[in-house]
Amino acid sequence: MSLTLNAPLDMHLHLRDGQMLENIAKCSASSFSGGLIMPNLVPPVSTKEDVIAYKQRIIQAIGDEEFEPYMTLFFDPSFDREFLESIKSDIIGIKLYPAGITTNSEGGLSGFDVEELRGVLTAMSELDIPLCVHGETNGFVMDREAEFVSIYERLATAFPKLKIIMEHITTKASVDALDRFENLYATITIHHLLITLDDVAGGMLNPHLFCKPIAKRPEDRDALRKVALEAHPKVSFGSDSAPHPREAKESCGCAAGVFTAPIALQLLAQLFDEADAPIENLQAFVSGNGQKIYGISPIPKTITLEKSPFVVPNDYNGVVPMYAGETISYSIISKD
Amino acid sequence: MSLTLNAPLDMHLHLRDGQMLENIAKCSASSFSGGLIMPNLVPPVSTKEDVIAYKQRIIQAIGDEEFEPYMTLFFDPSFDREFLESIKSDIIGIKLYPAGITTNSEGGLSGFDVEELRGVLTAMSELDIPLCVHGETNGFVMDREAEFVSIYERLATAFPKLKIIMEHITTKASVDALDRFENLYATITIHHLLITLDDVAGGMLNPHLFCKPIAKRPEDRDALRKVALEAHPKVSFGSDSAPHPREAKESCGCAAGVFTAPIALQLLAQLFDEADAPIENLQAFVSGNGQKIYGISPIPKTITLEKSPFVVPNDYNGVVPMYAGETISYSIISKD
Repeated sequence: MSLTLNAPLDMHLHLRDGQMLENIAKCSASSFSGGLIMPNLVPPVSTKEDVIAYKQRIIQAIGDEEFEPYMTLFFDPSFDREFLESIKSDIIGIKLYPAGITTNSEGGLSGFDVEELRGVLTAMSELDIPLCVHGETNGFVMDREAEFVSIYERLATAFPKLKIIMEHITTKASVDALDRFENLYATITIHHLLITLDDVAGGMLNPHLFCKPIAKRPEDRDALRKVALEAHPKVSFGSDSAPHPREAKESCGCAAGVFTAPIALQLLAQLFDEADAPIENLQAFVSGNGQKIYGISPIPKTITLEKSPFVVPNDYNGVVPMYAGETISYSIISKD
Repeated sequence: MSLTLNAPLDMHLHLRDGQMLENIAKCSASSFSGGLIMPNLVPPVSTKEDVIAYKQRIIQAIGDEEFEPYMTLFFDPSFDREFLESIKSDIIGIKLYPAGITTNSEGGLSGFDVEELRGVLTAMSELDIPLCVHGETNGFVMDREAEFVSIYERLATAFPKLKIIMEHITTKASVDALDRFENLYATITIHHLLITLDDVAGGMLNPHLFCKPIAKRPEDRDALRKVALEAHPKVSFGSDSAPHPREAKESCGCAAGVFTAPIALQLLAQLFDEADAPIENLQAFVSGNGQKIYGISPIPKTITLEKSPFVVPNDYNGVVPMYAGETISYSIISKD
């Protein structure tokens, strides 16, 4: 039994920079047609020059693979309309991080005062530049995302024409918010469709499944699965694949992030198969929805998978993937 | 400013065996008058001979220190009255583990059928042997203890004269159960009085604070603090200090347990001081309540602490304590 996906897209991807970029870029480029590239480098990607230079470095790291890096900018409330107009053709979204909330987000936003944000968000709204948001407060780890929903609601109400993407949602609270506001969208990772906090800290501690936002409760995972499997039109796949060197994950004080890029499509195929969801829904979740939300036309590329065991490698150039050493039930058999 | 504690007791303590016992026994013996010793060795302590031999090994490891190891037995539903009578003078409690719920609990109990347990629990009840319970189900990690409360209630109702100790409670649900049943008691650790899940997995992952039951929500910690600080008469201090070699904590698949024995009294003094709680309450929480609940008269021993900075060592014979390398505000200055 095989299935073919057209132009799969990863709408939330960390490719890092330097040696790490060299080490892992092909993991995404070999199975995806394109990806939305996160700008949280050190220092962050925050100027037109940064975007252009980073895109070049990505293209170089990808080599022969056909893969479109859809670029984003690190949000700054001082961006003015002129700047946004000048950069509009180089990016497809702007990523907002609350200050200090995850890896390399120290320069993020503190406070979400609508009046202070009115200038930049009105301009983004008029220029049709989506706002991608890491939606967590500084509250208790299991509540951070649900607490942030009121901020999403405030922004969605104040800027009704602004496309707001709730990135890597992990809770029923965020899923529920999707349908309350026309301009709220979401990405969902494969790991949050598969695991709960039990997998991170219920048995032994598993640093390779530790990420931000942290995996939540079974009922949260159920809510995420429902909208993913039905291919809710406002939801698209974004892996949030986030490589760290093995040492940074396995040492005391483990860094946050799950590396899924090389196995994301296989796991998605397995999940949709096990749930008896239609292949069209997987196609929409992993490409069609993202194309419509962002208005993009990806590079033609087909990936064919079949139901045959795949033993996940122990690492990819020193980066340990999710389910390292375990056997998953789908394999990629050809690309075109 | 100094304070003197009389005969401090640790009513829930893991001393392990072999080299680990040698390495850490004095950490407890040097500051406590006695401790309730957990029986989850491999194989578990489940016969009179086991208890006597293990106690001897502990006394040997302690050396010159004055410290009473109050022994427990690993619960088995097949214990009969004759056996219990024969062992009553060697132990002060029997510890029940649900199967597979924590370190070395593979031989624990599956199912809590009152009729199946009637023989052994009636005998324990009549012989006044307390039942110490690790109260967690196999459910979602944040719900396991709260789900177990209904089992506590079932046992407390069916065996109203049996003293049931809810060990190392971590939730408001367990605190609330205390006053609903005359025969329910509890121990509380110092780490669960200090941390929440945020400290384990809210920033970076901290394996040295990973334990079972896992630290819960801020409101749970508040409920625990309330009954500890007021020295609720049914609650006593039990550290659940659980040493693992550094490698077992810091490697992938970290073992559960927080090692607090050598700093428990200092942290308790700091907590009660910061909360402006009366010293009598600390004395009751850390000794008087346990004496009354178990009907024991500990070895006379006084420990004097003062408010002066103590830098927690990075390890004690290869075991990393809670707050390793950090400075806490109380020090032990003399023992008598």
